[in-house]
Amino acid sequence: MSNEADLDFIPIAERIHANVGRQGFMNLVGAELAEISRGTCTIAVERRPELLQQHGFFHGGVTAFLVDNATTIAAATSRGQPALTAEYKLNLLSPAVGEKLICRARVIKPGRQVAVVAADVFCVSDGVEKHTATALASIAMLSEDVGAKTKSPAA
Amino acid sequence: MSNEADLDFIPIAERIHANVGRQGFMNLVGAELAEISRGTCTIAVERRPELLQQHGFFHGGVTAFLVDNATTIAAATSRGQPALTAEYKLNLLSPAVGEKLICRARVIKPGRQVAVVAADVFCVSDGVEKHTATALASIAMLSEDVGAKTKSPAA
Amino acid sequence: MSNEADLDFIPIAERIHANVGRQGFMNLVGAELAEISRGTCTIAVERRPELLQQHGFFHGGVTAFLVDNATTIAAATSRGQPALTAEYKLNLLSPAVGEKLICRARVIKPGRQVAVVAADVFCVSDGVEKHTATALASIAMLSEDVGAKTKSPAA
Amino acid sequence: MSNEADLDFIPIAERIHANVGRQGFMNLVGAELAEISRGTCTIAVERRPELLQQHGFFHGGVTAFLVDNATTIAAATSRGQPALTAEYKLNLLSPAVGEKLICRARVIKPGRQVAVVAADVFCVSDGVEKHTATALASIAMLSEDVGAKTKSPAA
Repeated sequence: MSNEADLDFIPIAERIHANVGRQGFMNLVGAELAEISRGTCTIAVERRPELLQQHGFFHGGVTAFLVDNATTIAAATSRGQPALTAEYKLNLLSPAVGEKLICRARVIKPGRQVAVVAADVFCVSDGVEKHTATALASIAMLSEDVGAKTKSPAA
Repeated sequence: MSNEADLDFIPIAERIHANVGRQGFMNLVGAELAEISRGTCTIAVERRPELLQQHGFFHGGVTAFLVDNATTIAAATSRGQPALTAEYKLNLLSPAVGEKLICRARVIKPGRQVAVVAADVFCVSDGVEKHTATALASIAMLSEDVGAKTKSPAA
Repeated sequence: MSNEADLDFIPIAERIHANVGRQGFMNLVGAELAEISRGTCTIAVERRPELLQQHGFFHGGVTAFLVDNATTIAAATSRGQPALTAEYKLNLLSPAVGEKLICRARVIKPGRQVAVVAADVFCVSDGVEKHTATALASIAMLSEDVGAKTKSPAA
Repeated sequence: MSNEADLDFIPIAERIHANVGRQGFMNLVGAELAEISRGTCTIAVERRPELLQQHGFFHGGVTAFLVDNATTIAAATSRGQPALTAEYKLNLLSPAVGEKLICRARVIKPGRQVAVVAADVFCVSDGVEKHTATALASIAMLSEDVGAKTKSPAA
């Protein structure tokens, strides 16, 4: 299925972009919602000194933020429901060097109550990607009603 | 053992404070290393619009950053070795409302190669704490030599 | 609230005991549902050669089984709903030596859709307990209707 | 690299098979080490009433056992070192129906101290595989000396 033909996805994508645009922390970090499609989300951020730890690598907290946001958004794309991070596990595989950090999330298992989403984070040096982290998340899928009441969905 | 009498801990604490002070992301988030002792670390951050998501709660990425940093630092305090986050799992329990976020990490199991550290995150509204997240982390303990070579320890 | 006075808990406990009694794997392992109360569950198993790995410790898979079952049952006790393990993370802290393995699970955060449950596993040598594993689980809480349809709840 | 040409792997494989053969719990469950190669391990088990929960699905504890063993063995194949499960996270995706359960583990990131290993579990009905669980594990790699002293490596 191409996204061009998936007309139902257009309002979902618009709503997600609008929600993400209102996230103060997304703006503070300076991350960009690079791509969304049904069941996937890619978020990227360019290197800046404010994103690093004491040895000049991207801070693990930046990696975690990308994972948190990308997995929740990927879950929200699959059916347009509000979604909320329930939990995730993150393994840091290698120092996050380079000029850019990219997180790619994909839904492994959609669900009525809980969606399972995987994410991989890559750091880019001179255009070459290196696998720096991998994560596995459970995202709580809210009904529209609950979403309206709690106002806590991420996307 | 009181911290007052633990003279060996003074240089460890000083080194940790110096390292954390050089973390660009810690400064960007505006978090404070509120307390460290042997095997524990507390990090806190005051509410600012730049730390929130679209519904006015602290962003999950801020919670994750606190957990990432506090667990690694707690592991580093226990024997003064450089330490590096290997992985953690984070469960978000309730929306992070209120004026302050506090993460308290404690070493459950020190280790020669891997330390296991638990962390709990509380949000504070009108002085009352609410449990907003809980985490379980594995921290790789590096030898001094490895630390010097890789320059990647967090503390 | 004492369990004696919690009359509503009696049929819940009876149903849980009946369900656990029909678990072929519980019987194969030879584990015992030692105690349940609102929000907690304790399962224990005595050492037998069939439960060990090649060095004479309890196999990690036995520890995982206890965690899987105890966390789901603990979640089921809190409101009597059918419950289903969504995911858990398990840290093995030390070799599971001794004559007995005990897993104690407690609900950290009840939930309409997802309950968060912690578990700790202890091995007992000459009556002395040692902390051998710790776990953090998310348990999907099913409605009675869903439970009846899927027939997959653990308790 | 074909396994035929990897002569160094032969003694590693033999040692792993011998160790697994001495695991009482592997024998009790009746699981089979179906395949090992550098960085991968597949373990399978046929359906028997003793492996089920109360609704006739494979018990989650059986799935966890396969994950625990396959991830540790996969890590041990990569360099022949003794290996010990440090932790893993397991997401159960769907009821484990069918006549067989297969766990395939693969090393994502080998490491001097910690190897990161992913595993997926499939249940087989009428020859068709369904994805029933996914896991992410950290395996502590022991030196030969430590292995000899602690006698706790899984493989």
